[in-house]
Amino acid sequence: MNVWVTEWQTPDVGLSLKVKAVLWQERTPYQELAVVDTEAYGRVLLLDGAIQTTDRDEYVYHEMITHVPLTVHPHPRRVAVIGGGDGGTIREILKHPEVEEVHLVEIDERVVEASRRFFPRIAEKLDDPRVHLHFTDGIAWVRDARNFDVILVDSTDPVGPAEGLFTPAFYASLAAALGPDGIATVQSESPFLQADLIRRIHTGMRASFAGVYLYLANVPTYPSGLWSFTLGSKGPDPGAARPGPAGMATRYWSPEVQAAAFRLPVFVQELVRAEEPAQP
Amino acid sequence: MNVWVTEWQTPDVGLSLKVKAVLWQERTPYQELAVVDTEAYGRVLLLDGAIQTTDRDEYVYHEMITHVPLTVHPHPRRVAVIGGGDGGTIREILKHPEVEEVHLVEIDERVVEASRRFFPRIAEKLDDPRVHLHFTDGIAWVRDARNFDVILVDSTDPVGPAEGLFTPAFYASLAAALGPDGIATVQSESPFLQADLIRRIHTGMRASFAGVYLYLANVPTYPSGLWSFTLGSKGPDPGAARPGPAGMATRYWSPEVQAAAFRLPVFVQELVRAEEPAQP
Repeated sequence: MNVWVTEWQTPDVGLSLKVKAVLWQERTPYQELAVVDTEAYGRVLLLDGAIQTTDRDEYVYHEMITHVPLTVHPHPRRVAVIGGGDGGTIREILKHPEVEEVHLVEIDERVVEASRRFFPRIAEKLDDPRVHLHFTDGIAWVRDARNFDVILVDSTDPVGPAEGLFTPAFYASLAAALGPDGIATVQSESPFLQADLIRRIHTGMRASFAGVYLYLANVPTYPSGLWSFTLGSKGPDPGAARPGPAGMATRYWSPEVQAAAFRLPVFVQELVRAEEPAQP
Repeated sequence: MNVWVTEWQTPDVGLSLKVKAVLWQERTPYQELAVVDTEAYGRVLLLDGAIQTTDRDEYVYHEMITHVPLTVHPHPRRVAVIGGGDGGTIREILKHPEVEEVHLVEIDERVVEASRRFFPRIAEKLDDPRVHLHFTDGIAWVRDARNFDVILVDSTDPVGPAEGLFTPAFYASLAAALGPDGIATVQSESPFLQADLIRRIHTGMRASFAGVYLYLANVPTYPSGLWSFTLGSKGPDPGAARPGPAGMATRYWSPEVQAAAFRLPVFVQELVRAEEPAQP
């Protein structure tokens, strides 16, 4: 049989993957959730038709959203993840031995259940004693949070349940939830396809963080294959990152890859520079 | 009307673009050539169904195949391009004022004709007096060439007319066609999807070049969005590249982006390192 799943990455661009089997489909209280097994990328988790994670390339996104802020912060002990119900970001965070507690704030418990069942290698650390699960709205949760070292916003696209995670008010809450050296990193979509959104995120974060920095990673199943993250820092400079835990096993991230990820192509640099305050 | 063009990037992955108009279709003596106008990427040139270049992202590939080797070579005066009939690589080469002559060796004259007609901004330098056009087989042409400073292999995928451009025998010809400081750079496909091919290219180039180096760039319309180039050097070290012409206008490349392009993700580094000679 010739079955394909297509993500309409924009109204004008589709990525199609040949399907071996549709493993799961449900409508949760928040979104449509599907798990399909594909020839090219193994098992794929889709929310509202958008690819969230795949067995074969998940390491890129999860390593890069995690190890960059956790090596920029001087001593990340208390960490929170907003979204990220598949557990991949949790798995990477727990590779840092100095982390004492991690809070996962996922609005949709069904995402966590699906990941435990269909993506056991991604979800493998969700039962670690350092992990605290909160099935609730991340916006309200962050409003009451205080003294975190690092908060990672591992969200879906800015439509549906994640929309409120892309607002200046939320970035102000993030900053207030962080301690003095605090770092927040948010996934910020593709520079090729969502330039305006990246500009808005950058401007929004600048109102609440002393330093705001964009960095990039290559995720083949995300639109355009080039993904961005925006890091807001209340103090530490990404140029002075620690090298990371000795012998930490990674497949994409290294200290050298991290340094290179901040060297932006000219068109991306111009995109962000326009949002910086004018130089005297 | 709802018209789409789909490239089957592998038997299991397709990229679809919404079409405004099909502008041209022909079967040349060598391949099927098509030009379509798309919503997302403007005009797109396809050969045998594979996207070669688009108005909106062509600068990434053309800048990165060109400016890296031309700044690694200490004085690139004589340059050749094998393939590259759209003319984008020629346009970038001629941004380097020290270049005295460029030879474009394209097997299919119809590609050049289509580019002149449908991609005038890409083809704009094909009539420069420094450019010499040769509509002939690149393999035979390189066999007789001597004393080039830089040769760029701007080929299609290793099926059809370009197959012979991915062999150790061709890499030996390239090395023989270069002067003592000579540099060859070949487009070498996607690390996510063509790992075996990248290994074969690396091994093949190592037999003929003192130093072989992989570097990366983000091309959203190429499979996986992450593209590689393999640079073979008879002498110069990419770590000692010149900064490039003062004030050169680019949209992707910069000296910093060039340095970062050689910092390979762990999985890519391992892919290539396996092909290096064992350390004592």
